[in-house]
Amino acid sequence: MKEQVRDITSRDVDFATWYTDVCKKADLVDYSSVKGSMIIRPYGYAIWENIQSELDKEFKRLGHQNIQMPMFIPESLLNIEKEHVEGFAPEVAWVTHGGTVPLEERLCVRPTSEVLFCDHFKKIIKSYRDLPLLYNQWCTIVRWERTTRPFLRSREILWQEGHTMHATQEEAIEETKRMLKVYEDFQRNILALPVIVGKKTEKEKFAGAETTYTIEAMMYDGVALQNGTSHYFGTGFSKAFGIEFLNKENKLENPYQTSWGVTTRMIGAIIMTHSDDRGLVLPPNIAPIKVNLIPIGNDENVLNKIKEIKNSLDNENITNNVDTSDKTPGFKFAEAEVKGYPIRLELGRRDFEEGKVTLVRRDTLEKIEVPFESIIETIKTLLGTIQDNLYNRALERRNTMLHTADTYEKFKTIASTKPGFIKINWCGDMACEEKIKDETGLKSRCILEEEEADNVCIVCGKAGKHKIYFGRQY
Amino acid sequence: MKEQVRDITSRDVDFATWYTDVCKKADLVDYSSVKGSMIIRPYGYAIWENIQSELDKEFKRLGHQNIQMPMFIPESLLNIEKEHVEGFAPEVAWVTHGGTVPLEERLCVRPTSEVLFCDHFKKIIKSYRDLPLLYNQWCTIVRWERTTRPFLRSREILWQEGHTMHATQEEAIEETKRMLKVYEDFQRNILALPVIVGKKTEKEKFAGAETTYTIEAMMYDGVALQNGTSHYFGTGFSKAFGIEFLNKENKLENPYQTSWGVTTRMIGAIIMTHSDDRGLVLPPNIAPIKVNLIPIGNDENVLNKIKEIKNSLDNENITNNVDTSDKTPGFKFAEAEVKGYPIRLELGRRDFEEGKVTLVRRDTLEKIEVPFESIIETIKTLLGTIQDNLYNRALERRNTMLHTADTYEKFKTIASTKPGFIKINWCGDMACEEKIKDETGLKSRCILEEEEADNVCIVCGKAGKHKIYFGRQY
Repeated sequence: MKEQVRDITSRDVDFATWYTDVCKKADLVDYSSVKGSMIIRPYGYAIWENIQSELDKEFKRLGHQNIQMPMFIPESLLNIEKEHVEGFAPEVAWVTHGGTVPLEERLCVRPTSEVLFCDHFKKIIKSYRDLPLLYNQWCTIVRWERTTRPFLRSREILWQEGHTMHATQEEAIEETKRMLKVYEDFQRNILALPVIVGKKTEKEKFAGAETTYTIEAMMYDGVALQNGTSHYFGTGFSKAFGIEFLNKENKLENPYQTSWGVTTRMIGAIIMTHSDDRGLVLPPNIAPIKVNLIPIGNDENVLNKIKEIKNSLDNENITNNVDTSDKTPGFKFAEAEVKGYPIRLELGRRDFEEGKVTLVRRDTLEKIEVPFESIIETIKTLLGTIQDNLYNRALERRNTMLHTADTYEKFKTIASTKPGFIKINWCGDMACEEKIKDETGLKSRCILEEEEADNVCIVCGKAGKHKIYFGRQY
Repeated sequence: MKEQVRDITSRDVDFATWYTDVCKKADLVDYSSVKGSMIIRPYGYAIWENIQSELDKEFKRLGHQNIQMPMFIPESLLNIEKEHVEGFAPEVAWVTHGGTVPLEERLCVRPTSEVLFCDHFKKIIKSYRDLPLLYNQWCTIVRWERTTRPFLRSREILWQEGHTMHATQEEAIEETKRMLKVYEDFQRNILALPVIVGKKTEKEKFAGAETTYTIEAMMYDGVALQNGTSHYFGTGFSKAFGIEFLNKENKLENPYQTSWGVTTRMIGAIIMTHSDDRGLVLPPNIAPIKVNLIPIGNDENVLNKIKEIKNSLDNENITNNVDTSDKTPGFKFAEAEVKGYPIRLELGRRDFEEGKVTLVRRDTLEKIEVPFESIIETIKTLLGTIQDNLYNRALERRNTMLHTADTYEKFKTIASTKPGFIKINWCGDMACEEKIKDETGLKSRCILEEEEADNVCIVCGKAGKHKIYFGRQY
C-alpha cells in the first residue's frame, strides 16, 4: 500500500528520474499538452505563493513598488540594445497573427522586460527628483528552451523582475548588491539553502549587463543551480533608449540601472537539496502545511482531541491539515512523507488513553512521544530545529563537495572523478575559462569577491586575478 | 499651478476623454509601445493588489486553491469544444515561431483557460472522491481587440478565472451562484458599486456555457459595464474532453463544471462610477492610501506632529503617506484630489498652535476641523462615512437612469433620449432581442431571475417570459 503512494526512484540510482518522480508524486506539477510548459498544481503553487509573500514584503519594505508591463515586445523595441537582442532573440516565442490578421510587426513574448521598462522610463523620468525609481514585476516569461525539466528549465517561467533607475552609479551598485543580499538571506533563512554568492565572468554575465551577481546553490548531486541574479547595467540601456534626467546641477545625464530576478527554479533547488527517497522534504519556513494531523481509527475521543490540537495550531498560525480520509494509517503516513510535511502528528486510542501523541520529523523520520500538555510548545521548537537541521545538513554535504585545485591536472582529475565545485586561481582571461569548459564541461560559477587570488592561473600560468568556482550546472 | 496637476477634461463635456485623463493624471496607467496593451503603473497596480488580496482570501475561505496553467494553448486543444472555439478563435494571438524555428503546431495565447483546465482535469479526476475540484488562477489573458481603452478593453487583461468540477449538477449550479454572490458582495461592499445581477440571454452567454450569470454595473454616463461573470457549463466540456469519474454507485459519469472571472475592468468601473472633474475618487475600502498628510510650511512642531499622526495611523493599519515635497500647498492639495485619497489632512503652524488639523473629504470636498485628541477616531468614522456615501450617491444616480418601457415605441423614445437601462417584458425569443439591438443599439444586459414577466413581450406581443434589462455597453 505504501509503495503505491511512493514509487519513487532512488536518488542515488538515478537522480534525474528521482527528481521528476518527487515533483509528480508530491503533486507539485503535472505535464500539459503544451510541450515544454508545466502545470503548477495547488501544492506546488502554494510554495510559490509563500515565496512571493515573503519576498514581496521585503521588496516593499525597501521601497519597491509593483507594476505590470505588457507581455509582448515589438521586434523593433527588442532590437534597440544590441547585446541584449543577441542574447535573447534566438530563444523567444513570436506572435505573428492577431485573430486571422497577420501583424504589421511581429511581437515576442517577453523573455525578460528590460526594454519595456526602459521604454516607459524614458517617458516618466525627467529630473533627479524622479529618482530612484524602484519597480518590481511578478509575471511569467517565455524562453523557447529545447530540453525542459519541472521548475528548472521550462518554456514558461514564473518569476519576479526588479528594475530600478538611479541618479548615481554608486547608488545603483548599492541597489544591485542590496537585492543580491535579499536573495541570499531569503534562500539561507527561509529555504535553508547554503548558497555561494559572487560575480559572473564576462562570458557568463547577462546580455547587456555591466556586472552580474549570482546566487549559486549546489544540489544533492553536486551540480550547480544558478538561483537568482542581480545585474548592474550602468548607463548601457539608458543611453541606447535615450533616457535622460536633469541632475542637481541642472545638466542632462543618463541614469544608472539595475535589474534582478528569481524564479520558480528555487522550488527545484529546495527539492534537489533537501528531499529524499521517500519524497519531498520542505523547510518549515516555506512549507504550505507545517503539521499533518493523522487520527488513527475512528474513536470519538481521538477525533475530538485532534480537533482541539488543530484549533490550538490555528490559533498559533501554524498551518496544518487533518487527514480524515478512509485510507489506512500506513498509506497516510507514506503520503505525509511524500508530501514533505515537516511534522506528522499521530494519535490513536491507546495514545489518547496515555495522554500523548507521536510527532514524526520528516527530516530525520525520528519519532517523539509528547504528552498532551506540551504538544504546541514542542511543535514550535521542533519546527525551528528542523529548519536549522535542514540548513546544516545541506551545508555539511555541500562543503564535502567544495574542492580546490592548484594545478590544471588536479582540476581535471577532480572534475572527472568528483561531483561539486572546484575553486581555482584564474587570470581573468576568457580563453582560459573557455578552455576549461571545452575540456572538462565545467562552467565558471562565480568570482569570489571576498577572496583574492594567491597564486598564478592554473590554466595559463599568468598572474592570478581572481578566486573563482567552476562546476557543472543545471 | 493647480491646473498643471489637473488639466482634466470635464466629464459632462466629453466622458471618454475625461476617463482617459483621469487614468493618466492619477498615474494609474501609461500607454506602451505595444499597441493595445497598457502599462499598469504602481498606483493602479496597488488597487489591483488590494482587489486580489480581498478576493483571494474569500476564494480560499470557500475552499478554492490557486494553480498555474501554461499561457499557451495548442490549436488542436482549443478546437475540441466547438462553440468555444467559434467564440474565441477570431480574437486570439497566435505564436508561430520559437526562436527561428517554425512551430509544428501553432499556439494561441490563452483568451481564457477552460480547455487547459479540462485537459488537466481529465488526467486527475477518477472518482467522486476527487470532487469537487475547486481551482482558481490569477493571470493575464489576451484577446486581440480592435479598439482599446485603459482597464475596459485591452489586448492583455489581468484577471482571475475560477474553474471547478462537481459530482452533481446541483452542486455545480450552487457554486456558479455562490461565486456570483461573492462578486456581488465584493463590488457592493468594497468597491461601492451598486450592481444588478442576472442571467445572460442565449445570445449573450459565454461561448460553451449552458448558463452565464452576470454582474452589470452602470457607469456615470448611463452605459453598462459587464463587471464579472459566472458560468455553469453542465457537462458540455467534460463530454467533449472525455472527463469521467466513478460515482458512488460505481458508474462512470461526466462531472459538472463551472467557471467564473473578474478583471482589472473593475478598476475602470470604480473610476467611471465615483470620480469627478478633479480626478480619481476611490472608496476607502479599496484605496491603497486612505489618508494623505500634508504639512504646510517647515515648522518643526508641525512636522513632528505630522510624524506622530502618521505613527498613530500606522498603528491602526490605516494606510497613509506624507507629502513633504517642496511643492506649494495648492499643488499638493490638487495632487491629493487627482489621486483620489479618501481623506486629506492639512496641518499648518497656526493650526498647530490651536491644537487642530483640517480633514478634507475627497468625496464631498467638505473641510472638517478636528482637535488633536480626536483625529484618529474621526478618521476612522469618516472612512466609513465616505464609503457609505459613495455607494449611496452611486445608487441614487443609477436609479434615476433605470427606466421601464411597456411598449416598444416608449422603449425607442427612451433609448434615443435618455441614458441608462430599460426594463421590459420579453418573450425570450432571440429575434426580438436582435431586433432591439439592430434598431436601437441597446443590447440585453441581464434577465432578472427574481422578477417575473407581468405582460406581453413589448416587441412581438407574444406572451412575456422574462423581465430583462437592455442598455448600451462598454
